[in-house]
Amino acid sequence: MRERVWDAWVSVVTLLLAIELPVHLALQVRMPGYDVLYWLATAILAADLVVQLRKKRSWIAIDLLAAAPLGLLPGGTAWEAIRLIKLVRVGGHMQHLRQRSIANGAVLQLVFFALWLVITAHWLACGWIVLGGEARVDPQTTYIRALYWCITTLATVGYGDIVPKTNGQMVYAMVVMLLGVGIYGYVIGNVANILANLDTAKRHYMESMERLAVFLRYRRVPVELQRRIRDYHAYLWNNQMGYDESAVLDNLPHNLRTEVAVHLRRELIEKSPLFKDASQELVRDLALRLRPALFIPGDLVFKYGNHGTHMFFISRGEVDILDREGNVLTVLRDGDFFGEMALLFEQKRTASARVPGYAELYSLDKASFDHATERYTDFVTQIRREAERRSSN
Amino acid sequence: MRERVWDAWVSVVTLLLAIELPVHLALQVRMPGYDVLYWLATAILAADLVVQLRKKRSWIAIDLLAAAPLGLLPGGTAWEAIRLIKLVRVGGHMQHLRQRSIANGAVLQLVFFALWLVITAHWLACGWIVLGGEARVDPQTTYIRALYWCITTLATVGYGDIVPKTNGQMVYAMVVMLLGVGIYGYVIGNVANILANLDTAKRHYMESMERLAVFLRYRRVPVELQRRIRDYHAYLWNNQMGYDESAVLDNLPHNLRTEVAVHLRRELIEKSPLFKDASQELVRDLALRLRPALFIPGDLVFKYGNHGTHMFFISRGEVDILDREGNVLTVLRDGDFFGEMALLFEQKRTASARVPGYAELYSLDKASFDHATERYTDFVTQIRREAERRSSN
Amino acid sequence: MRERVWDAWVSVVTLLLAIELPVHLALQVRMPGYDVLYWLATAILAADLVVQLRKKRSWIAIDLLAAAPLGLLPGGTAWEAIRLIKLVRVGGHMQHLRQRSIANGAVLQLVFFALWLVITAHWLACGWIVLGGEARVDPQTTYIRALYWCITTLATVGYGDIVPKTNGQMVYAMVVMLLGVGIYGYVIGNVANILANLDTAKRHYMESMERLAVFLRYRRVPVELQRRIRDYHAYLWNNQMGYDESAVLDNLPHNLRTEVAVHLRRELIEKSPLFKDASQELVRDLALRLRPALFIPGDLVFKYGNHGTHMFFISRGEVDILDREGNVLTVLRDGDFFGEMALLFEQKRTASARVPGYAELYSLDKASFDHATERYTDFVTQIRREAERRSSN
Amino acid sequence: MRERVWDAWVSVVTLLLAIELPVHLALQVRMPGYDVLYWLATAILAADLVVQLRKKRSWIAIDLLAAAPLGLLPGGTAWEAIRLIKLVRVGGHMQHLRQRSIANGAVLQLVFFALWLVITAHWLACGWIVLGGEARVDPQTTYIRALYWCITTLATVGYGDIVPKTNGQMVYAMVVMLLGVGIYGYVIGNVANILANLDTAKRHYMESMERLAVFLRYRRVPVELQRRIRDYHAYLWNNQMGYDESAVLDNLPHNLRTEVAVHLRRELIEKSPLFKDASQELVRDLALRLRPALFIPGDLVFKYGNHGTHMFFISRGEVDILDREGNVLTVLRDGDFFGEMALLFEQKRTASARVPGYAELYSLDKASFDHATERYTDFVTQIRREAERRSSN
Repeated sequence: MRERVWDAWVSVVTLLLAIELPVHLALQVRMPGYDVLYWLATAILAADLVVQLRKKRSWIAIDLLAAAPLGLLPGGTAWEAIRLIKLVRVGGHMQHLRQRSIANGAVLQLVFFALWLVITAHWLACGWIVLGGEARVDPQTTYIRALYWCITTLATVGYGDIVPKTNGQMVYAMVVMLLGVGIYGYVIGNVANILANLDTAKRHYMESMERLAVFLRYRRVPVELQRRIRDYHAYLWNNQMGYDESAVLDNLPHNLRTEVAVHLRRELIEKSPLFKDASQELVRDLALRLRPALFIPGDLVFKYGNHGTHMFFISRGEVDILDREGNVLTVLRDGDFFGEMALLFEQKRTASARVPGYAELYSLDKASFDHATERYTDFVTQIRREAERRSSN
Repeated sequence: MRERVWDAWVSVVTLLLAIELPVHLALQVRMPGYDVLYWLATAILAADLVVQLRKKRSWIAIDLLAAAPLGLLPGGTAWEAIRLIKLVRVGGHMQHLRQRSIANGAVLQLVFFALWLVITAHWLACGWIVLGGEARVDPQTTYIRALYWCITTLATVGYGDIVPKTNGQMVYAMVVMLLGVGIYGYVIGNVANILANLDTAKRHYMESMERLAVFLRYRRVPVELQRRIRDYHAYLWNNQMGYDESAVLDNLPHNLRTEVAVHLRRELIEKSPLFKDASQELVRDLALRLRPALFIPGDLVFKYGNHGTHMFFISRGEVDILDREGNVLTVLRDGDFFGEMALLFEQKRTASARVPGYAELYSLDKASFDHATERYTDFVTQIRREAERRSSN
Repeated sequence: MRERVWDAWVSVVTLLLAIELPVHLALQVRMPGYDVLYWLATAILAADLVVQLRKKRSWIAIDLLAAAPLGLLPGGTAWEAIRLIKLVRVGGHMQHLRQRSIANGAVLQLVFFALWLVITAHWLACGWIVLGGEARVDPQTTYIRALYWCITTLATVGYGDIVPKTNGQMVYAMVVMLLGVGIYGYVIGNVANILANLDTAKRHYMESMERLAVFLRYRRVPVELQRRIRDYHAYLWNNQMGYDESAVLDNLPHNLRTEVAVHLRRELIEKSPLFKDASQELVRDLALRLRPALFIPGDLVFKYGNHGTHMFFISRGEVDILDREGNVLTVLRDGDFFGEMALLFEQKRTASARVPGYAELYSLDKASFDHATERYTDFVTQIRREAERRSSN
Repeated sequence: MRERVWDAWVSVVTLLLAIELPVHLALQVRMPGYDVLYWLATAILAADLVVQLRKKRSWIAIDLLAAAPLGLLPGGTAWEAIRLIKLVRVGGHMQHLRQRSIANGAVLQLVFFALWLVITAHWLACGWIVLGGEARVDPQTTYIRALYWCITTLATVGYGDIVPKTNGQMVYAMVVMLLGVGIYGYVIGNVANILANLDTAKRHYMESMERLAVFLRYRRVPVELQRRIRDYHAYLWNNQMGYDESAVLDNLPHNLRTEVAVHLRRELIEKSPLFKDASQELVRDLALRLRPALFIPGDLVFKYGNHGTHMFFISRGEVDILDREGNVLTVLRDGDFFGEMALLFEQKRTASARVPGYAELYSLDKASFDHATERYTDFVTQIRREAERRSSN
């Protein structure tokens, strides 16, 4: 962390030098408080030279040149320009910062991007002044007009109120224009990209909705069914479930994947007596095997007499357990489980299960159930006890 | 629904204020009927404050500021600008509307997009007038010239007939240009995207055709075979089958998936006696297991003596059942099924099946057939009866 | 085909009208030979009205209006503009043509695209003349100057030598500019896309090479190994094998897939005595099961004593069969097969196989081999006879 | 290689002619040293004609025309333009070079791209001079002004200080502008693409990090867990493991895939006594079957009493072997293996394994282990001996 702060200081003074120096060379004026900046920067860069030497960084010549007060050489400030080679390190610091910041990478990229754009425009404007593109009235007006010309050109607006006159200026203008095309293309491509990525989750969701809508229209699915599908997806999204978790989890190593999975199922784990009292190991094992399933109002989870292949845990919502004729036997709530009998005794469903409203369930298939009962005796005992209690009712 | 209408009213009056206010500040003129608008807007925004309070929305200060008639403060209309903070809510309403509309998301996005662009240009034009960029002739001409300058700049055309003169105007022009680059890039990226997505189904189809064509050319597949492949795809497209349904269905929960599948196979289900009289459950179960298969003129569905792994249902078209020598035994039509014997008695095909024209069939594999015969006794009885009837013929 | 030619004629006369009419309205001049064009067009459009009526096309009003000689109405030529509604049909014809043409879709799109762009620019230029944007010198100069202004604006170049003066012209210019942004964005997006898709196969190949190169550099794979990998891919590409065929074939129905597969393996099928004399059915069945495999100089296909899971057919190139000590027993050539013993007798490899140069082989796995031997007695007999002949050697 | 050099020479003289000729035609001046260039070029192109004839290249007329000294014809230099048809061959050479260069394809593309852009601009500038767009002062100024006009237009800046005056110039300007839109779009699309692809590996990594971050934020995963996930990925990246190798390897033929895999696991193979002394064949076989797995500090590789399905090899890092109570029995280091007992004797884990720091392991599953023990007796003997040694401890 302290290292980051130091890098930031080095970056700031280098950037300040990168802004001040061309102004001085072009307009022959010094910014107020220049001397303080200059010696402060030299001191900091010298200190950084020591830091980099200790870290045995390659290309140490960069730090050496940047730390040298080259302005004192005969010939003056022009030599100072060499010190700006330190910007290479600044670029490195920026990239490092972006890489470390998992959350705000895109925003940082946008900020750094704008920074480089401003500095480039600044340098080009100063170059224009040096080439005599602007009559030297007062420094401020001269600079603003030069920057104005530069941005007019880079943005390809090209009003034409300030135009190159000499051959040299024309060549310079051509370079700026060609550069402009490149920068412009790069900016357009990047800004669009960054903005698009700012809320990937949302964009991803909207796009999949869009794709779905196209399909449903194309195959003329009834509007009422379309509306239910849309509501289902809206529910998913608003309850932070509208994102395919498996694609992300698969890239993680087993242990991290387990921890993320435990976090994702924490609501169920905290509510269900079965899991709250279970061993850490059982919870971590099952967290990866539980499959989330959202049921929408009126959905049948399973039906009396059908073949049973899953048991279910209620994370949120209610489930009505119905007998053969559809009478409500009992209502299960958050943390309860059901459907275990079909797995325990390999029998057909002895009741139906229906959700009156939205219900977030987790399902566990036969293979995972067998895997758990084989390894964790507590688990099967508890399930078996509950199953017996229910049968006796 | 009533909520949507109210939100629309709030959005409209806010947008009207957002257009009127800068005009007043810049040109010192009031639009006709301004007073009515002003008090109507204030009333609506005050009512919305109550609505938002009831809903316990966060950032209620936005609604509070927007409802206050700040124009009455000493210092005048400039204070009113604060009320435009309500545009944040308008943005929310727009996004909400887009999200709710499964069918026209892209079109709505384009419309909202154009709206924001127009408002931005309007504000920038008013700013240009405030900075004295235009000689004040009559208000209308002044405004048109300012807007014209603004759009000339944003579109990066930059004729140069109206250019900034003072330093302040130059700085303003630079901001507009840099904004222009960003907006322009965003517009280009988005408009292209939205247009591309307007008919995703079609684009998807054209692209896959293109890919196919490249491969066939590259591997020098005979032109005649290429033509047949193209006709096959054209038939798919024109009969709403040229879209991979599984990718879309997989993202739906089981019950919705079943309903969509039943809808997609409704033509077969309505035509086939086997399904029309079947239990709701069998239909829903098989709908997901039937695989659509399009056969092109002259195709053999299966051949006498071959191993049989599927049975077929005719959704549309004719199928000739041929004996060993190729004589037509019978012609099956929409709703009929065939190929069931190989599955029932695990024997080789006792006849060939050929389609004279295009035929849309559904195939059912052995596993699904066994699954159905195990669960639904009616189904196997009916199939068995038909098979016996045919054998006796 | 005759239908296409007629549609083309209708499109051409409609487009000619769409070009001629605005010129007349703007410049008050008639092109030479106008009368011939006019009555020819009217005749063709009237004939097309009959054609469309017969086909029972919807929106027949379009054809009706287009066929009417509205220019004879009092008020004159302005009424003729209504006839240009027929352009809707022209758009339909273009799309139809593009869809039918599997090979040149992208090129056609580019041509149609340029056509619409030219017509749009033409109309905008005529509109500029009507609004008085150009002094009326001679018609030709006026038109060129108007078109020049229009393109300068659409391309966002905006020299500023011709600028709007009246408020009306300014509003018109704004519309053209905003249109320009949209069209420009669309053009850039599309032209780039179309050019990118012109040679998808090649692009696909170059990109996969690029991806491979990045990986090899990143993992510091030795340069010599990198070179061999590159040569392998270059061989693939130059011999029309550098394209993943399975992705394309999977989208085809079984029969077309078989025919394409037979075409792709035609070289082997024609060369190999085993296939040339085989039944049509065996060839079609195996064509889908043979997997292409390219071996590079020095590669071992299999090694003495190893477990054998595949047999091989030589499509092009030579294969040395080596004994345990590496002595060449025999050299096999195009059309030969080898490695069949391991599959027939479930034994270990009794020889090694090595390729001295590039060799294109097809492999057949155990499952497919068993599948074939079970169904096609000829096949297994022939293979068995050859195997015995070899063993006796 | 010698062929490449010759192609390069041919390309260079052709490009020089392509630059010189328009200058001569437009400005009526000869560059200094022109005669030497001219006859050198003619000689080289004549020699290339022979080379191409020998190679039996198609379109030999191109080389014939290019080799002819057409400038000697009556009518003069204008005829020379025909020789520039040789540029077709130059394009071919460039593409060939790009294709051969696996490493720097993108950079070469950028260079060639810039080259064509410069030549196009040069030609357009010369055309502008021919049409009289520039007053002929001295040749240098005339040329610079023409090129300046051309680039101003192509880059869509359009200052408007140099504008077309005659109708002919206006038409020319329109062509340049329309070309400009196309080129500009193409440049923007391509430059952005090439830059994006310059470091695909890194971009790929950053994007997957970005996606991960969005998911973690969306599902509100605790910050501490997010940090660990980020650190895991950073470690992967910095140790050249952050790239999915299977996708790349799958596109290679078996032998090359094996060699790349052996290279990728070279660190382990060199360190582990088990592999260093093993047969070449075993190493190559297992290299493809070993799965890399990175463990982060504190991770349990497996736990006492659990079911064992994999054995592990340590490529880098330490692994603590713990007894039931968590006491460290032994510490394994680079090149060691562990977890083999569960596979050998199909028993439960008799110890736990935990990594104190980052550890790069390779896992081998039961199927691959059985595959190896079946084929390579040495392998199983060595493992068995080590297992016995450990059991006796």
